[in-house]
Amino acid sequence: MSADKGLVENAAGRLVPTVVNGKEQVPFAGVAKHKPSGARAAPSLASCADFPADGNKVVKDLKTALKAAGLKDGMTISTHHHLRNGDFVANMVFDAVSEMGIKDTMWFPSASFPCHSHNIQHLDSGVIHHIEGSMNGPLGEYCSRGKMRGLGVLRSHGGRYQAVQDGEVHIDIAVIAAPTSDAFGNSNGLTGPAACGLLGFALADSQYADKVIVITDNLIPFPCIPWQIQGNYVDHVVVVDKIGDREKIVSGTTKITRSPDRLLIAELTARFVREAGIMKDGFSFQGGAGGTALAFAIYLRGMMKEAGVKARFVRGGSTRYLVEMLEEGLTDYILDGQTFDLEGVRSMGENPGHVWTSPFTSYNYHGKGNFASQVDAVVLGATEVDVNFNANVVTHSDGKLLHGIGGWQNCLFSRCTILPIPSFRDRIPVLVDEVTTLCGPGELIDVIVTERGIAINPLRKDLLDAVKGSDLPIRDIRDIKADVERICGGAPQKPRFEDKVVAAIKWVDGTVIDSVRQISG
Amino acid sequence: MSADKGLVENAAGRLVPTVVNGKEQVPFAGVAKHKPSGARAAPSLASCADFPADGNKVVKDLKTALKAAGLKDGMTISTHHHLRNGDFVANMVFDAVSEMGIKDTMWFPSASFPCHSHNIQHLDSGVIHHIEGSMNGPLGEYCSRGKMRGLGVLRSHGGRYQAVQDGEVHIDIAVIAAPTSDAFGNSNGLTGPAACGLLGFALADSQYADKVIVITDNLIPFPCIPWQIQGNYVDHVVVVDKIGDREKIVSGTTKITRSPDRLLIAELTARFVREAGIMKDGFSFQGGAGGTALAFAIYLRGMMKEAGVKARFVRGGSTRYLVEMLEEGLTDYILDGQTFDLEGVRSMGENPGHVWTSPFTSYNYHGKGNFASQVDAVVLGATEVDVNFNANVVTHSDGKLLHGIGGWQNCLFSRCTILPIPSFRDRIPVLVDEVTTLCGPGELIDVIVTERGIAINPLRKDLLDAVKGSDLPIRDIRDIKADVERICGGAPQKPRFEDKVVAAIKWVDGTVIDSVRQISG
Repeated sequence: MSADKGLVENAAGRLVPTVVNGKEQVPFAGVAKHKPSGARAAPSLASCADFPADGNKVVKDLKTALKAAGLKDGMTISTHHHLRNGDFVANMVFDAVSEMGIKDTMWFPSASFPCHSHNIQHLDSGVIHHIEGSMNGPLGEYCSRGKMRGLGVLRSHGGRYQAVQDGEVHIDIAVIAAPTSDAFGNSNGLTGPAACGLLGFALADSQYADKVIVITDNLIPFPCIPWQIQGNYVDHVVVVDKIGDREKIVSGTTKITRSPDRLLIAELTARFVREAGIMKDGFSFQGGAGGTALAFAIYLRGMMKEAGVKARFVRGGSTRYLVEMLEEGLTDYILDGQTFDLEGVRSMGENPGHVWTSPFTSYNYHGKGNFASQVDAVVLGATEVDVNFNANVVTHSDGKLLHGIGGWQNCLFSRCTILPIPSFRDRIPVLVDEVTTLCGPGELIDVIVTERGIAINPLRKDLLDAVKGSDLPIRDIRDIKADVERICGGAPQKPRFEDKVVAAIKWVDGTVIDSVRQISG
Repeated sequence: MSADKGLVENAAGRLVPTVVNGKEQVPFAGVAKHKPSGARAAPSLASCADFPADGNKVVKDLKTALKAAGLKDGMTISTHHHLRNGDFVANMVFDAVSEMGIKDTMWFPSASFPCHSHNIQHLDSGVIHHIEGSMNGPLGEYCSRGKMRGLGVLRSHGGRYQAVQDGEVHIDIAVIAAPTSDAFGNSNGLTGPAACGLLGFALADSQYADKVIVITDNLIPFPCIPWQIQGNYVDHVVVVDKIGDREKIVSGTTKITRSPDRLLIAELTARFVREAGIMKDGFSFQGGAGGTALAFAIYLRGMMKEAGVKARFVRGGSTRYLVEMLEEGLTDYILDGQTFDLEGVRSMGENPGHVWTSPFTSYNYHGKGNFASQVDAVVLGATEVDVNFNANVVTHSDGKLLHGIGGWQNCLFSRCTILPIPSFRDRIPVLVDEVTTLCGPGELIDVIVTERGIAINPLRKDLLDAVKGSDLPIRDIRDIKADVERICGGAPQKPRFEDKVVAAIKWVDGTVIDSVRQISG
């Protein structure tokens, strides 16, 4: 036990708060150790008698909708990141909340992006009390500097679904940005000027929030098909000029890395997947939109073609490279969580094999299984990895909280989790003795691929055996780390923190796996 | 108030039980009068830690699954009618329950068919205590004769979803017949030897039952796309040789009526829809699979073509006639609740505009609106209609309970509800002073079309005005009734009943709209 007031040591040896934003917490108890008790959240019953028979739920503007939804001080308001850094909606929402004179709200985004630094004024003024949700960039830094009144709470995509489903977070009002909607509230992300692909991040909110507002710039006649969000869960529909900036919602084209080191890492990763026997007919893998992950998928595609191997499914974040694989017949399906480029959006609308999923299907740990554990191999990033394969994905080595968890924690449950990472960045080693923030327990991380060799988690004797005799540069993680420290002039300096805890990191089961402290200076 | 013990008079003047199968009831209070309080049913939380990481939930056989699901005396077990009169599963289930020595279960089918008369032995022996669900044919007669220990409870498709969602019915174990499934439990009805189209009737069960068993004769590799039932809700998967008799699941071809009277009724109905101005660009209607409803759709199609009118959507039960309309471009969408023939199944698999719906989207009255009230015109059947437009759809004029409610009550909320019915059947008038069993309040029934003329509900002055000046044979319902009684030699004899109540008829909001008594003799 620590002397830190209100903190306890969890099963990973991390000091975590026992109370977060007024709510009792369960410290991380180990992978698959904490079992939920109780029941799913139970929203109030509605009646068709209280909704327009003609199905027209359109109200004049956002303020009218928020008022009708009963907006009050202290409420929890959710938004979603399917419009990514092009989103206008989360800013509109808190501008309206501010103009209505409401204070102390909790903002519960599925993620926030640099475009949302606009809302810092509403944090400063007290309109937003705190944020629970990924804070990419400026809002993360704001939190890191101890400026937020409440604690930031970071959850994975699956953990967010779990928290809402389990009633850990009660959403009073959900505002769902919809690239296309009908007046009843059926919505999708496939068409319209702000087309983003799918709306899966808002699924939990639609199902469990007290009041649901759909906001669109592309209202079409009932029925909006497919209804990725079902109007049967929606209270009000608001039509605005523009919900987002098309250019920043999806890339026109996704960029592959040009760095020779990263290309080497990507190729080694693909070769590992092949040599370990994972790449075989009917297998599955998760791609990604990062430069290295993209390059990995392209290398693997080449190897699959060469070997005449076809995948059963590929998990997106989809890009044109995955779409090409689908259209070339190299996979039966893309099971997609978000589309990263225009080709992804097009394909999801056109190809029956390009399937939209949600954090419920893919990641919710408090379901009767999910898809994540059925993926043969995933490649993920990390900001730091320690010699026990524990990994960090939210803070940089300077201690700043600059990234969300995304689906990262959820994906660790795949049959083979591979982190293709450079062994150092800006002359700061990525391989460390102890990660600044623990996001993923080492027992779930199987392989680290660096430009200096591949380290396999000793727990995975099967993988060590599988690549024995291959010409892959398999090395001990400590040896790679020693190399890197020689190059960089030693282990990285530990970041300097204040005592104050500014954020809690949740595990997929709702327990607290780590905390983040205010940075010094 | 009545002298009948335990019965009260509801807002429709019907005597209904205050307690049904041990549960307190709310008497029907009028259309849109009863508002639900409380919250949605809240199933226990699950954890991925308790499910196989490889996603393989297949167990040896049905008994193993039922045992693993914790089957006990007195439990509620649900099945579904998407395999209609070709279903093998509901019989298999109760054979297994019987062999396991379990007693006093409640069978909660979405509907039962003549093929399920097999289960009468299990009612006789005490394995099944009673049935809550539509009882078409022999099981209805069994109930009518007072042989069931508990009360039959009849609900509409939407009412069944509402009852499960609201926690009025708690399902311990749901067994879902799946024409195609993967080992994780993702299922659909689109392919496989028992292909039936869609599995919407089982949606509520998958979401709210404690334990969910999927039973299939067509196991495919993960993922089963589309997942009409989501494996994330499924506990166990069972593979058997055959879940149904293909010939009886869907018709090879749907049959149009050849009766000249019924053809006349169908044509008058289509003409009414046209003359009343309902048939216009962007309109919607609900078809049906009955001979008259089919003929109506064919007449209407002809009129639409002639007038160059296109529908926005058509509600199924789909048949090849609706599919032809979709494929000819006469409608943008079929919003389908069940497919009645092979062409319907094919189209649902192939046409993105042929959309599978569920009782949640279409009919649940305790949602934030539903689709039923957005349909411009529906045509429905009835066994009896009274002079105030109240209608019966469950009992025959001899008092026997032989039909379920289906989506009938839910569809009454459309903008124009039309009952095309013969004015008499087997020389027994269909138009009566008072219906034997009240299923639909007259205020929701707008038009009666018979071979002797069309009666418009006086409440619908707008419709009376709309057809003024047309050459349609608009008549007072009492005049048509008088005609019919002249032909048939008077009003029909009232059926003879015992005092004992054998079934309760629920309204869409869970209140009791009427009761059915044991038939005499």
